[in-house]
Amino acid sequence: MPYRAMHLLGIEPLHPTEITTLLDLADRYADENRRGIAHRDVLEGMTQINMFFENSTRTQASFELAGKRLGADVMSMAMQASSIKKGETLIDTALTLNAMRPDILVVRHPQSGAVDLLAQKVNCTVLNAGDGRHEHPTQALLDALTIRREKGRLHRLTVAICGDIAHSRVARSNIMLLGKMENRIRLIAPPTLMPSGIADFGCEVFDDMEKGLEGADVVMMLRLQKERMDGGFIPSEREYYHRYGLDAEKLSYAKDDAIVMHPGPMNRGVEIDGTIADDINRSVIQTQVEMGVAVRMAAMDLLARNLRAKRGQEAAAREVMA
Amino acid sequence: MPYRAMHLLGIEPLHPTEITTLLDLADRYADENRRGIAHRDVLEGMTQINMFFENSTRTQASFELAGKRLGADVMSMAMQASSIKKGETLIDTALTLNAMRPDILVVRHPQSGAVDLLAQKVNCTVLNAGDGRHEHPTQALLDALTIRREKGRLHRLTVAICGDIAHSRVARSNIMLLGKMENRIRLIAPPTLMPSGIADFGCEVFDDMEKGLEGADVVMMLRLQKERMDGGFIPSEREYYHRYGLDAEKLSYAKDDAIVMHPGPMNRGVEIDGTIADDINRSVIQTQVEMGVAVRMAAMDLLARNLRAKRGQEAAAREVMA
Amino acid sequence: MPYRAMHLLGIEPLHPTEITTLLDLADRYADENRRGIAHRDVLEGMTQINMFFENSTRTQASFELAGKRLGADVMSMAMQASSIKKGETLIDTALTLNAMRPDILVVRHPQSGAVDLLAQKVNCTVLNAGDGRHEHPTQALLDALTIRREKGRLHRLTVAICGDIAHSRVARSNIMLLGKMENRIRLIAPPTLMPSGIADFGCEVFDDMEKGLEGADVVMMLRLQKERMDGGFIPSEREYYHRYGLDAEKLSYAKDDAIVMHPGPMNRGVEIDGTIADDINRSVIQTQVEMGVAVRMAAMDLLARNLRAKRGQEAAAREVMA
Repeated sequence: MPYRAMHLLGIEPLHPTEITTLLDLADRYADENRRGIAHRDVLEGMTQINMFFENSTRTQASFELAGKRLGADVMSMAMQASSIKKGETLIDTALTLNAMRPDILVVRHPQSGAVDLLAQKVNCTVLNAGDGRHEHPTQALLDALTIRREKGRLHRLTVAICGDIAHSRVARSNIMLLGKMENRIRLIAPPTLMPSGIADFGCEVFDDMEKGLEGADVVMMLRLQKERMDGGFIPSEREYYHRYGLDAEKLSYAKDDAIVMHPGPMNRGVEIDGTIADDINRSVIQTQVEMGVAVRMAAMDLLARNLRAKRGQEAAAREVMA
Repeated sequence: MPYRAMHLLGIEPLHPTEITTLLDLADRYADENRRGIAHRDVLEGMTQINMFFENSTRTQASFELAGKRLGADVMSMAMQASSIKKGETLIDTALTLNAMRPDILVVRHPQSGAVDLLAQKVNCTVLNAGDGRHEHPTQALLDALTIRREKGRLHRLTVAICGDIAHSRVARSNIMLLGKMENRIRLIAPPTLMPSGIADFGCEVFDDMEKGLEGADVVMMLRLQKERMDGGFIPSEREYYHRYGLDAEKLSYAKDDAIVMHPGPMNRGVEIDGTIADDINRSVIQTQVEMGVAVRMAAMDLLARNLRAKRGQEAAAREVMA
Repeated sequence: MPYRAMHLLGIEPLHPTEITTLLDLADRYADENRRGIAHRDVLEGMTQINMFFENSTRTQASFELAGKRLGADVMSMAMQASSIKKGETLIDTALTLNAMRPDILVVRHPQSGAVDLLAQKVNCTVLNAGDGRHEHPTQALLDALTIRREKGRLHRLTVAICGDIAHSRVARSNIMLLGKMENRIRLIAPPTLMPSGIADFGCEVFDDMEKGLEGADVVMMLRLQKERMDGGFIPSEREYYHRYGLDAEKLSYAKDDAIVMHPGPMNRGVEIDGTIADDINRSVIQTQVEMGVAVRMAAMDLLARNLRAKRGQEAAAREVMA
């Protein structure tokens, strides 16, 4: 089943074979990026607009680089600074940009569901670059590509996701992707940072790092999302690090060849010990960033093919009508 | 009379045939944008710098897209954030950028006349993207193109411009353009938001929506420019909407096929009822945005031709001297 | 001795012949910029990322224009606004960007030494766009090119550097470059703004403008760096201008054909009289800006050649190993 959708809004609607198609293409792009091969013709003549309603240097830079390597005209807009201040609604902003006839919109927004809503209103391809606590599909795909390249497969692995699960769209997208690919998922968090009803997703739940990490192939740490903890419990960083921060002692419970991941930006000494983050034998954090560009290239490439096909059909239909 | 100027600073100095030349070219670009045809060679090798001393996502994005579609290297700079803080004057900033030898400067500035002043100091082509309460020529041109495409002509129409006329450069540029093209212009505003002496421009003046909208072909709503009402009277939004906000009842006084326009960003429920703004049978607000890109492409294309011709003459003159 | 380094971190490590090589190439670029000749092939397929941890419209614009004229994909990131707020370290930010495989990083940072540290951690070419009070090598190079073009040579000139020497990386880089090229350097500053131990660099030290400017070929004014005077003595602007601001009377002590320079942005009426800044017979301030683009083009061109050579050798070595 090839990827036929117009948008990439989340992992939830994807079929496992669509995920594999996307990762296979990203794998090729990753190799060719290393050899310095560009592919300017893929998005040539296309316009990509990045609308980030939340700041994110790394994700925005990754999408911008991916688009430019494929030959798109890329325009990045810091949205808070401007129209939002003037009281314009998200939908009006989206319709305005849509009327400028872009081909690809990359959207990050602090509210869950905002990107889905926006995609219904525009004629172009939309990629979700993170919406509230909902989804962050390209992050889950880049994590999957990193795991597949490091462990040689993306199934029957034991993956421990550790930390602030409750506020994390990264966790949510990863749980869905890893579940679809038939991996064993363990969630480790203090009870206050574990969402209720999560066991329904087929995950094992732990509040103890030693037990949760036992035999893990992959240790995926999460960022403490203090900015999303509105009014709720905020753990002290010292206490949090003591119980849930990844250090050598806790990591020793995982498999000897377990890899360590983090979506960044890291709080060193809070979620993770700096020595482990920098240990090139265990940490694949830089590889995650590298795979991010490749995955975004692959996603925009596939979506642009679908967009071109749809437009071709519409033009043909108009000719028949005429 | 072809367009021979080096700058586009306002509507005031333009001859009607120059306006028509510009709109004819923009019309072609609008059609070709819809068919996905780019024109990378028009500004190839040219550098466009956007200097926005006031934030404006939509106008800046429109100029940036227009330049990129024509093949220019586009650099957009948020000016408040940087040099202005360090106390540099507008002219020093302009001279500095001019010394980097750009070809096109697009400038928005909160002070009326600032863009004209700047154009006298630089060697490149300058486009006014809005200066204080003075002019916003590309907005008037995109409004004109929208009207011409929707109504089939740009003369002998009854156009009602409604709302905060006093603080609006959009109104000012539109009054001049529509007047030059021999339309009947009605201005509708509360007395506190109606500039004195405006009747000299040959407009009819109303403080009542029903009377002013009677028989109008075009209903052009304006944004309440609260940010420009320094110290003056600020109407309550509820009272304003009641008397001057466009709703179905007030619109019924205009012609049955009257079109509704707004330069954006809209304050829904203040200047205009959301249902009317979204009614695709009446509202041409999205078309205005689309025509904005086409009009800016046409303006930069014509100005770049004049710039190249002038430089060619200068180079020839230098050779004769040598 | 050709320029073989991977980075341009400062003037200190450069040999005089390397400086001459760089200026010769920049001189050609300056001439060709005036004739509107672009060189899109020089950095074609390469990615340049500008990381400015301090705002600087002019320097960032200059590097961005230089990269685009040479055909690079340029991405400019305002760093304060984003990751730094989230507590990420400089090195993590650099490693993240490095993992996206850029070719050229241009970095400005408020801390002395930060850019050197960063260069040790990445695989790409790094250009220092100013770090704390340490170095600003492209500024010294553009000043040198301006002097060489205006005075016909870059040696045996008497250059007076005047003002806030203590807080100025511009002064520091210029002192080193002008010293290497065998010029006579005079430093003029109030005692509180003169760094201790500066006489070791072979400069003459003055606290009086008349004596210091006597017979100078070049008068280089500095910007008062109030933002770097943490807790120390801040002179009153009026008193400062009276004693150290360049006006016609003080300038009369220099040679009749002395040129006046300023790195910008200027505080008119503080460091320099506006009339002198605008006097095209004395002031070369606009030429400095113009040479800035040319010098940055030359530096990136030379560094890109070295990067390509190194990568070619590494690829060949890998093939031999395989």
